[in-house]
Amino acid sequence: MATDSRKRQAKREDGRPKTATLADVAKVAGVTSMTVSRVIKGSGYVAPATREVVLRAAQELNYTANLAARALVTGRTGAIAIISGDLNLPYCANIVYLFDSLLSASGYQIHLLHTRGELRDLINSTNSASVDGVIVAGMHHFFEELSSLDRHVIPPCVHVGITKPSQGDYVHVDLRPAVEEALERMLAAGRKRIALVGVGSHLSVDETEIRPQTYISMMQNAGRELEFVSASPRYEVPGPERVNIIKQYIEANGCPDGLLCFNDDIAIQTYRALMDLGYRIPEDVLLVGCDGLPILQYFEPPLSTIAQPMEEMCALAWKFLQNRIATPDAPPQCTNFDAQLIVRKSLQN
Amino acid sequence: MATDSRKRQAKREDGRPKTATLADVAKVAGVTSMTVSRVIKGSGYVAPATREVVLRAAQELNYTANLAARALVTGRTGAIAIISGDLNLPYCANIVYLFDSLLSASGYQIHLLHTRGELRDLINSTNSASVDGVIVAGMHHFFEELSSLDRHVIPPCVHVGITKPSQGDYVHVDLRPAVEEALERMLAAGRKRIALVGVGSHLSVDETEIRPQTYISMMQNAGRELEFVSASPRYEVPGPERVNIIKQYIEANGCPDGLLCFNDDIAIQTYRALMDLGYRIPEDVLLVGCDGLPILQYFEPPLSTIAQPMEEMCALAWKFLQNRIATPDAPPQCTNFDAQLIVRKSLQN
Repeated sequence: MATDSRKRQAKREDGRPKTATLADVAKVAGVTSMTVSRVIKGSGYVAPATREVVLRAAQELNYTANLAARALVTGRTGAIAIISGDLNLPYCANIVYLFDSLLSASGYQIHLLHTRGELRDLINSTNSASVDGVIVAGMHHFFEELSSLDRHVIPPCVHVGITKPSQGDYVHVDLRPAVEEALERMLAAGRKRIALVGVGSHLSVDETEIRPQTYISMMQNAGRELEFVSASPRYEVPGPERVNIIKQYIEANGCPDGLLCFNDDIAIQTYRALMDLGYRIPEDVLLVGCDGLPILQYFEPPLSTIAQPMEEMCALAWKFLQNRIATPDAPPQCTNFDAQLIVRKSLQN
Repeated sequence: MATDSRKRQAKREDGRPKTATLADVAKVAGVTSMTVSRVIKGSGYVAPATREVVLRAAQELNYTANLAARALVTGRTGAIAIISGDLNLPYCANIVYLFDSLLSASGYQIHLLHTRGELRDLINSTNSASVDGVIVAGMHHFFEELSSLDRHVIPPCVHVGITKPSQGDYVHVDLRPAVEEALERMLAAGRKRIALVGVGSHLSVDETEIRPQTYISMMQNAGRELEFVSASPRYEVPGPERVNIIKQYIEANGCPDGLLCFNDDIAIQTYRALMDLGYRIPEDVLLVGCDGLPILQYFEPPLSTIAQPMEEMCALAWKFLQNRIATPDAPPQCTNFDAQLIVRKSLQN
């Protein structure tokens, strides 16, 4: 097919292949440019027979190659890369979903990047012509690496997430006030053993992570002992296995009466462990997650969580990226949001 | 930047712009082609200074335009479009996640398509050069429309889902045996009022849908009355609103003692409605969902569901698509899987 197309392709006076325009297609099809536009956009009514004539003309003129041709000529691709965590994490799926809605509405396509190889390709810039911009969701270290590179090598990029990058355009959300509010509620309810349930024991020492950081300073200010429940040292552990690890901890150490969970997935796994062991929420133990996953409201009792204003954050990040694409030398664009504690029955006692 | 690139670009003897090769970049950078390849792929160690020299050379030779150039010359883009439902539905997010893993491993990029405009563009074929193939997940009517079009206009495509298309390549999963098994369990447990909870009242009459179809024939064979709980006539209704609709139905009509839910989202919303009204699962009512979402195992009691072998199905669909891209005229490729009932406490009585 590629050979056929080149044979049919018109040559310009300078010898380079001529790109078929809407008008060319309209001329060959014997219709107005408006009709061709309608067929291409799929908007408005076009009689099926007319549509077929237009499509044949577009095919004959190799109009199908235009997206790639446009990328070569204008340097714009109409595509944005999104770099996020795995889509089997509801938090990440929701972010991609929100950007997908925003970008589609602006006529952009989404290219999903996840694998390390793809990230490296992007850093190495050799693929940079394939997208007009990059949205980095949550992958803070990767964003720092990207931002430190030559701006002429890397397409415009913006970061959205709970960590504040040291440079570049970003939309940041601060979890601290909401975490403090959750812990204050547990303290005010007279809970004695308030523990952090998290991914790995590194949580106790990772001072760049706002959740353990806030937990440690709040507990120390209240004169309480620190208690860390490691749901597993590894991120990729399957949920049911995490449930067992949490159950084993509780069976060996007794149950804390207040549990701050690192994220909503862990809150759900902790909930399952507590149910299996016959503990009651909120009577025996208060529980709060973090991410704002809607699913938590359906549990019995409904589970509390810390929500980020994701829709607003994603819309602003997309606005920042569009600005950056239009004005590469504009000053940095930064905004901070506050996360919100959503109090449900699991925190009410 | 586009102007700069064109100025620097070498011309071939026939006057067309010359595409910079790995060897060209290596020559300008004064390194081996292997080193350039390492920098591009991001594999193996390359000293930071060397990497920078290679990247500068690649930039100078406009090597960044190569992806678009390759698409023009070879007709291959290294990208596959995935058409699915919204990513805020866990079922759809999981499908995209699985294909994303498969395609990344094969060196392909994913282009997500959701909006009606994008689908129309694809049908209208004017964008077909932007992807090498299309995976249609669950959107049966759209796949039928695609398959009926001229194969020279539409890129190769494959369908994966619970409906069997009338033509084309597909991976189909049959829900019927698992739905029958769930209903047989309810009948064997002596349940008298077994209802279908679904999206809209059309469920009772849509004979192309296997779930209501199976429900109706099973109930009629058992001499039972049909009962449909419409969780809402519209797909886009928010979850909490569905919970209220289900509660209102139960308050007005009393509670059925067996509930087959159209999908897992509705099963979760039905669970919440039952909890709010003080019903016990499984003592008062048996409950089963459909989709196999892992989250259902974490509820108390754990909720039963009907699972599809998604990993196997997606892997096979991707194999079919690769075959079709390699051999456009090969005979149709079709496979059928059976869904599996996952029995948890919500079905045990």
